[in-house]
Amino acid sequence: MVEQAFGEFRKIVGEEFAREDGQKTEKYHRCTIPVERAIEGVLLPGSAEEIQRIVAVANRYEIALYPISTGKNWGYGSANPVRDRCVILDLSRMNRIVEVNEELAYAVIEPGVTQRCLYEKLTSEKTGLMMDPTGSGPACSVLGNALERGYGITPYGDHFASTCGMEIVLPNGEILRTGFGHFGAAKAANVYKYGVGPYLDGLFTQSNFGIVTKIGLWLMPVPERFEVCYFSGEKESDLNPLIDAVRWLLLHRVVKGSINLVHRNRVLTMLTRYPWEEMSGKTPLDEAVYGRMAAHKKVGAWNGVTALYGAREEVGAAKKIIKRVLRGKASRINFVSEKTLHLAERFPKLIGAMTGMNMSEVLKALRPSFAIMKGRPGEVSLPTPYWRMKKPVPPCDIDPAADNCGLIWLAPVVPMTKENAEEFIGVVRPIFARHGFEDCITFTAVNERSFDCTLPILYDKNDPAETRRAAECHEELLRGCMDKGYIPYRLGIQSMAGLVEGDDVFWDVIQKLKQALDPGGIISPGRYSRI
Amino acid sequence: MVEQAFGEFRKIVGEEFAREDGQKTEKYHRCTIPVERAIEGVLLPGSAEEIQRIVAVANRYEIALYPISTGKNWGYGSANPVRDRCVILDLSRMNRIVEVNEELAYAVIEPGVTQRCLYEKLTSEKTGLMMDPTGSGPACSVLGNALERGYGITPYGDHFASTCGMEIVLPNGEILRTGFGHFGAAKAANVYKYGVGPYLDGLFTQSNFGIVTKIGLWLMPVPERFEVCYFSGEKESDLNPLIDAVRWLLLHRVVKGSINLVHRNRVLTMLTRYPWEEMSGKTPLDEAVYGRMAAHKKVGAWNGVTALYGAREEVGAAKKIIKRVLRGKASRINFVSEKTLHLAERFPKLIGAMTGMNMSEVLKALRPSFAIMKGRPGEVSLPTPYWRMKKPVPPCDIDPAADNCGLIWLAPVVPMTKENAEEFIGVVRPIFARHGFEDCITFTAVNERSFDCTLPILYDKNDPAETRRAAECHEELLRGCMDKGYIPYRLGIQSMAGLVEGDDVFWDVIQKLKQALDPGGIISPGRYSRI
Repeated sequence: MVEQAFGEFRKIVGEEFAREDGQKTEKYHRCTIPVERAIEGVLLPGSAEEIQRIVAVANRYEIALYPISTGKNWGYGSANPVRDRCVILDLSRMNRIVEVNEELAYAVIEPGVTQRCLYEKLTSEKTGLMMDPTGSGPACSVLGNALERGYGITPYGDHFASTCGMEIVLPNGEILRTGFGHFGAAKAANVYKYGVGPYLDGLFTQSNFGIVTKIGLWLMPVPERFEVCYFSGEKESDLNPLIDAVRWLLLHRVVKGSINLVHRNRVLTMLTRYPWEEMSGKTPLDEAVYGRMAAHKKVGAWNGVTALYGAREEVGAAKKIIKRVLRGKASRINFVSEKTLHLAERFPKLIGAMTGMNMSEVLKALRPSFAIMKGRPGEVSLPTPYWRMKKPVPPCDIDPAADNCGLIWLAPVVPMTKENAEEFIGVVRPIFARHGFEDCITFTAVNERSFDCTLPILYDKNDPAETRRAAECHEELLRGCMDKGYIPYRLGIQSMAGLVEGDDVFWDVIQKLKQALDPGGIISPGRYSRI
Repeated sequence: MVEQAFGEFRKIVGEEFAREDGQKTEKYHRCTIPVERAIEGVLLPGSAEEIQRIVAVANRYEIALYPISTGKNWGYGSANPVRDRCVILDLSRMNRIVEVNEELAYAVIEPGVTQRCLYEKLTSEKTGLMMDPTGSGPACSVLGNALERGYGITPYGDHFASTCGMEIVLPNGEILRTGFGHFGAAKAANVYKYGVGPYLDGLFTQSNFGIVTKIGLWLMPVPERFEVCYFSGEKESDLNPLIDAVRWLLLHRVVKGSINLVHRNRVLTMLTRYPWEEMSGKTPLDEAVYGRMAAHKKVGAWNGVTALYGAREEVGAAKKIIKRVLRGKASRINFVSEKTLHLAERFPKLIGAMTGMNMSEVLKALRPSFAIMKGRPGEVSLPTPYWRMKKPVPPCDIDPAADNCGLIWLAPVVPMTKENAEEFIGVVRPIFARHGFEDCITFTAVNERSFDCTLPILYDKNDPAETRRAAECHEELLRGCMDKGYIPYRLGIQSMAGLVEGDDVFWDVIQKLKQALDPGGIISPGRYSRI
């Protein structure tokens, strides 16, 4: 059956791009979370039209397809399907930037367009536009992240909200254009997202109703001025006043993008590695060593970062207000422009003497996040999975899945109040401790009213016992957070079956919609869905 | 059949609130557009639980329900159903403000909550929060407008985008809670909108998939400073440079809310009435008289309005940038604060002498729009339908449907470029002229990249020939705009059947979803749907 289907698949995409499992498919199995999936193979179509034909074959042979954009869903399952026996539909060859409209500040892109690819297009052609990258590296798909409702830190940080207009191959092989896109002549298809009639785009995020082959993506004009603001709270208890300040700054839109509050433990995973020697090979890291490391790197208990974009007058005004609002709440507030950074790089000793800081350390810490906030995709989050690894972080093209790093993400949403943050920390810290892992908390504002709190579980995947503990820790964290009402904004493939079980009208509705659009159940069975 | 059903309906909602047609149902038939609908009656449920029971009866007797919030969908059909023989479900009794959260700046409201009701709650309880009103009057439903994807001019002007979390009675009587709302313990149900899994809320806007009985609504903190900016272009051709400036200001987020560009003809409908005497009873208004009226009221060809919200420093910075960007493009730029306005009201002659303006006229023009932009619902758009009426505009509680005004709205979306605006005007002006109506164009920025262009057809509903011409004019405008790709963001009930006809995968999908959720077809048949 599968063999016959592959016979037909080969005719559609060509020999090279239809691989049964075992034929150059190793990389699709690699994963930073402790799961293994049996797959039937991989198809790499080159166009929406090929996908339409693939879908027809899949329906005929009742074969499930699992579309991925570039498969870098690290910490959530990478390229692996939710269920066994799928054929992975790798869309990375569909990597055209179909249009860049400089006047109206948007692009139209395919699933295989990576952050690098978009960044290079926007800069090399001097479009005057910038993108909002994630920290997960230049090789990640822009479209894939938007469909998973990922986020960044610039004013265009809500990646789904920045999409406008989708092209989707439906499970029956037809092509759906959302918004105004289905009116052939429509002029506003990529500048007004809702269209007329029901607004459908949300249906195709975190779901299995179709294969998105194109999106419109709004882009930000490069601002006249750009400055990054770093601030910190020395003590754990400084978090509470900082949350009040952050909420005020966001609700009043003084800060147009996001603000991150990063815990000391998390900052250290980005700057350094597990101190195996000092800890004599033991885990988890104890408080005394953490304290010494933080003092050496001059990292506070909570570290805030945000960026200002705008004309000279605006950035000036925002800086004044930020200083006023953070006064008495943050212990250090630094604004860093491109100019300051250049200066520090040219004269590290001079600037070091003037500021009393260890400039080479500071620069190492600043550069990657600075670039991201300026719209340049980097690998700022990628060293984190190597925290407990005993081999070095590659200097570039970091691939934690290929390096067999252990990383499981959990990302619950927490309302932006100190009471909620406190309760949330009270839930997760003891669970990390109980399982022998460091808690590395970041609160990222995903809008003006809530944080997404990304929690990485960093473990040694070569150690079977530790791997088991990591899975248990994740399970317990998820349960603990859900019980207290801190629901994740996104899930790894290992947790989806648990999410949709039980009596819930919401998942009943999803099931009905799935049956209506995909009666054969051929697209990504089990992905945020019972079927 | 219907009679039997009404017997059951009476048991559910009580005698008083179950009315067969003819029993105090006149007002539901009133309409500013030339349509008439036969209805079976009206039900006024008091709770979601009553709606669940009504839905069960409707399924049993195969009776279509047509939910309205308050029924003030003026210019689009008011309270009238798309098709004949529905039972109107008037939700105006469900008018609880369930929650106001001052810290996280949101409210949870039912369908019957009017703009007045929300405004009074927010101000009388000194919540420090403001709403984004529409100009269609204090008696309109906030939820109803959000579900129709209406908009205002403040930074919270995209009313659907400001919703977070819905409660919906499904056609099968079950209650669906979207976002995180279906997880009983969820803490972020009203502060993070997407939930986990498919994001469904868009499905319940401009649709007939369920009856929304509650929404979370994000609100803006009252800013420290508030100033309105008025500017104008004297000549028709000034529109082009103004559009470039508006797009720049919005894309760079110097202006956080919307900007309106209002044509002279439209401004005059808000300030005055058709000059029947001067025109010796003839229509349409000729250019010479328009010119004289505009000169008298000091109205330019294109009149821009926006508002600035923020701390002192921010508003100051924005004013500087706006002046810079509008220089050489706008002929007058005025910033008006509450203080200036008070001063002008106290000393109209003095200020008049100082500025050379007719202060009483200026104030008459400014006050209503000023209030709206400050978050106070007013009736700024409501005099417009009285333009050609030969009776006076009521001083308050304006109800154009009750007064039998003739108003048909058409609201196409136009990308924010001068080329598109020019082409669009070139399409619509000759059609208005051919049918003997004044073109009263407004370009309202609905985001940073597109305008919604609201076109009112203002006619005398007591004149059957003019009424016929109005309907033809609307039909021709709609066709002309659609052909050139300027699709309306929303439609009147008279145009929905035409919208969904023909071969279109989009409407196929809507039909499948409708069948999946409402197999009996009991909710609002034909509303943005074939069935």
